[in-house]
Amino acid sequence: MTSPDGSATPDAQRHAIEGAMKRVADLVAAGAQVALTHGNGPQVGNLLIKNQLAAHVVPPVPLDWCGAQTQGTIGMLILNALEGAFAVRGVASPVAVVVTRTLVDGGDPAFGAPTKPVGRYFPAADARRFMAMGQSWTQAGERGWRRVVASPEPLEIIDAPAVDTLMAAGYVVVSAGGGGIPVVRDNGALRGVEAVIDKDLAAALLARHIGAAALVIATDVDHVMTEYGTPRARPIGRTTPERLRRLAAAGQFASGSMGPKVDAALRFVAGGGDRAAISSLDLIGDAAAGLAGTIVERDHSSAATRRDQPIGKPNARR
Amino acid sequence: MTSPDGSATPDAQRHAIEGAMKRVADLVAAGAQVALTHGNGPQVGNLLIKNQLAAHVVPPVPLDWCGAQTQGTIGMLILNALEGAFAVRGVASPVAVVVTRTLVDGGDPAFGAPTKPVGRYFPAADARRFMAMGQSWTQAGERGWRRVVASPEPLEIIDAPAVDTLMAAGYVVVSAGGGGIPVVRDNGALRGVEAVIDKDLAAALLARHIGAAALVIATDVDHVMTEYGTPRARPIGRTTPERLRRLAAAGQFASGSMGPKVDAALRFVAGGGDRAAISSLDLIGDAAAGLAGTIVERDHSSAATRRDQPIGKPNARR
Repeated sequence: MTSPDGSATPDAQRHAIEGAMKRVADLVAAGAQVALTHGNGPQVGNLLIKNQLAAHVVPPVPLDWCGAQTQGTIGMLILNALEGAFAVRGVASPVAVVVTRTLVDGGDPAFGAPTKPVGRYFPAADARRFMAMGQSWTQAGERGWRRVVASPEPLEIIDAPAVDTLMAAGYVVVSAGGGGIPVVRDNGALRGVEAVIDKDLAAALLARHIGAAALVIATDVDHVMTEYGTPRARPIGRTTPERLRRLAAAGQFASGSMGPKVDAALRFVAGGGDRAAISSLDLIGDAAAGLAGTIVERDHSSAATRRDQPIGKPNARR
Repeated sequence: MTSPDGSATPDAQRHAIEGAMKRVADLVAAGAQVALTHGNGPQVGNLLIKNQLAAHVVPPVPLDWCGAQTQGTIGMLILNALEGAFAVRGVASPVAVVVTRTLVDGGDPAFGAPTKPVGRYFPAADARRFMAMGQSWTQAGERGWRRVVASPEPLEIIDAPAVDTLMAAGYVVVSAGGGGIPVVRDNGALRGVEAVIDKDLAAALLARHIGAAALVIATDVDHVMTEYGTPRARPIGRTTPERLRRLAAAGQFASGSMGPKVDAALRFVAGGGDRAAISSLDLIGDAAAGLAGTIVERDHSSAATRRDQPIGKPNARR
């Protein structure tokens, strides 16, 4: 179920989300109250391609619109899949999806030096055409050119109060998809900007806002590894913020993949969260309980067993 | 601010929504509690074009996904614009956007005979290619071929309870965009289907669900007209359900434009709503109060002056 260029078809994306939501439903069936966020990288990549291939006919939409588009589609798929998984398990929790904006600072240095690659590789001629429209592109070796955008710091999940209201009424709420739609303050109003917000950092911010006990980041591997990709690779199980911070500072975690997840976990516990876990989707139940995956806790002596309000982060990537 | 083919650019769409939200903010500033819905026809048209022009590279997404995409983008634009208009007026109401599905019957006869045109005109060769992928297309005279889809009856706004919860907490809620994402029940779960739901009929259904006193349908003209487009054209002001129903039965209102709006107004009052109004965006305040536009009321003797919970329907079309 892949497209001409190997990307996941709509059916494949739906099946992947159905699989993920079974694990989330298990967690809710076990008594956890859950807020969900999700990524959107491959989906935004597809939208950018469509923008580019249709630009001679319909006006391309900016990157914040692409993010908003994926909140709608992935949100809808999660709604259907999670409700279906709840029905099988006899779980009565309602589910809602909130379109979510994330505040960034228009003066964030990231805007002056866009470095986050988005979308696919294009020939130089296409890149030149889009650069003439104001975009930043970078030559990425033999594979061609790739668009780069700013990835500013998330400062506030603007629509988090709506998430609070729905959670207080018993909803499982899906929000901050793709890190949230980036907005800046501009003359007293908010305005979308062309940027991408790291989804893990946004999830950590949301988790702190809603007072989550645990932040669970689901990814492709069971554990964060030291010396990843070498024969000396070793999994990190239960660890301390101090040790994890030291490993991060030593450059153990790749900036485009595990780095932001470790950063998000550290920010969550530094901000007062009890426990952050990074593990594979299949293990999120045990990870939320501190029994599987890479676990970092604020205070080992209090070894939290509370399971209210963990925040799950299933990976929407295939 | 139009594209190569004349469609509105993202900036033009944003400006149009900013203009519309000033009128909605006036209504809220005057004391009304408002739930908003919106159309998405031109935006879905653009997404279908992109689907088609990029189909050789990335898999086209189905029509329900296109609808979900527009709930994200238009929702985000409404959030920013309405909050901005509130700030200028000193209105403190929070605003939220809920991704919304609308239930339809998989056995609806509309699925057997798709008649609702979507997207633009294409040459026969393109139409044949998409028909081979299972789509229905129809030859639309000299302008070429056009895709047609089912427009089944909306049965239930699935995510309306989340709208209730947020409205009870004082939110202005944007939902049921584009009529809602069409879903059918399939083995106990909901599944998106390729269809479009009439946005006015969905708005009437939502308005009844939330117990709105008034349904306000904003369109391009101040009044519904009899003998529209002829020298004998005359505006309809205050009228009765009986008279409006008679005019509709006599074919006075075009099926693709004013017909569904009149139908939605009639359904709303027949279902117990106090007042439905059809008027231009500039007049929605007076229309909600029964003082402008085409007004149909359930019971003239009770001439409602309640202004709680009107449901506004700004037209997202340019």
